[in-house]
Amino acid sequence: MTDITLEQAQTVVEAARAAAVANGTRMNIAVVDAGGNLKAFVRMDDAWLGSIDISVKKARTARFFDMESGDIGTLSQPGGSLYNIEVSNGGLISFPGGIPLTVDDSIVGAIGVSGSTVEDDRAVAQAGVAAL
Amino acid sequence: MTDITLEQAQTVVEAARAAAVANGTRMNIAVVDAGGNLKAFVRMDDAWLGSIDISVKKARTARFFDMESGDIGTLSQPGGSLYNIEVSNGGLISFPGGIPLTVDDSIVGAIGVSGSTVEDDRAVAQAGVAAL
Amino acid sequence: MTDITLEQAQTVVEAARAAAVANGTRMNIAVVDAGGNLKAFVRMDDAWLGSIDISVKKARTARFFDMESGDIGTLSQPGGSLYNIEVSNGGLISFPGGIPLTVDDSIVGAIGVSGSTVEDDRAVAQAGVAAL
Amino acid sequence: MTDITLEQAQTVVEAARAAAVANGTRMNIAVVDAGGNLKAFVRMDDAWLGSIDISVKKARTARFFDMESGDIGTLSQPGGSLYNIEVSNGGLISFPGGIPLTVDDSIVGAIGVSGSTVEDDRAVAQAGVAAL
Repeated sequence: MTDITLEQAQTVVEAARAAAVANGTRMNIAVVDAGGNLKAFVRMDDAWLGSIDISVKKARTARFFDMESGDIGTLSQPGGSLYNIEVSNGGLISFPGGIPLTVDDSIVGAIGVSGSTVEDDRAVAQAGVAAL
Repeated sequence: MTDITLEQAQTVVEAARAAAVANGTRMNIAVVDAGGNLKAFVRMDDAWLGSIDISVKKARTARFFDMESGDIGTLSQPGGSLYNIEVSNGGLISFPGGIPLTVDDSIVGAIGVSGSTVEDDRAVAQAGVAAL
Repeated sequence: MTDITLEQAQTVVEAARAAAVANGTRMNIAVVDAGGNLKAFVRMDDAWLGSIDISVKKARTARFFDMESGDIGTLSQPGGSLYNIEVSNGGLISFPGGIPLTVDDSIVGAIGVSGSTVEDDRAVAQAGVAAL
Repeated sequence: MTDITLEQAQTVVEAARAAAVANGTRMNIAVVDAGGNLKAFVRMDDAWLGSIDISVKKARTARFFDMESGDIGTLSQPGGSLYNIEVSNGGLISFPGGIPLTVDDSIVGAIGVSGSTVEDDRAVAQAGVAAL
């Protein structure tokens, strides 16, 4: 298993933070490693307190299933094949903003962003992904 | 209470693992005993980390109510008689992949499988059930 | 980060189980991977139910700090430098029975054993370590 | 309430990280704000996984009581006035490595460091404090 380095994680966080500044949002930004454990985190000034936990859970959800957190959400709706999967793993977040991080075709961790609309959250997370 | 033996649990796990290998999936496979307590578990290489907890919860859900986990899910939808039962018992998983294990007409435990589509999960769990 | 394979984990578990059979004890045996996530587990017939969680926590404790679980315990006593560290990480177990697993000088996971005296638990864990 | 800014928190984290590099340790470094909520966090490569939670809990403990985490530990020993206070607040860490952060005589948050001996942890935390 290839793992993310702190330098890589900080590059990801900084790129996401810059994207949030650029679009005028205040975000919580978390990066977890290949094992799903927290590697780096920042909360921008005046960002929602409730989004600390959500950003971490989005990142963990993305690494736990090696897909975007929002993809889980399309399957977990009433009648869906993964209905209420959110109660597992101490709480999953299944709306957009969590994306796996890949280096040389290996998933090395994931980023989770929370603090605005899910569209904004996902865009900021994508900026982090693009920096790696 | 008739209970599953470790030898039986390992037979079930090994049959499920072989079925996963045969269909090219990477599964988390859990067996709980008659008391709903973990008896045996394996995570195949590169299987989803988030499916550790889900496989165990599927097995527990199946034994807690002596029916397939997916059968709970048909009753727990919005408007259903067991709406949101998933929040009980520290978290239930109510989609397919958890099946009771029976010996001589007595339920002795349950298997839970997670790591692919719910159809794949259930098929692999059934392979485990068939081995007992 | 090098990670343990399921084949290696099962070799470890089987060697520990054989050692438990040889000394007449009934053990819970858990192996976690490099990320501290459960990889393989067995509970021998009539092993203590309360030791399921303890075996997993011993393995996690050993990997969390890359040392034997009992070494934590020597530091966590009243007046010790790590007093009451056990309340962290959702619960640590700081008495013997958890040991890191190493391959080619890299820690790839850990084993945790619980079900008898701590001396027996540690001896069985060591048998698992020796098999890798 | 005066609160720490992200810029200040990152200055603290970076100074602590530099001190850890200088003394050859691998640390988890957390900063919480005036409300006790996580503001910034980094885990250095190969730092103990179990110290993620401990670094955060040290920081929270220091802010919860506006004193060094180790000072709580002198009161929480058997027979002490705060015996076993560690079980409160979802888990406190009462050994050294958590220190309040002060700006203009107001406590604006706290730093928590974990990854080595408690003496090393505290020294690295102090380097963070000194940078503010």
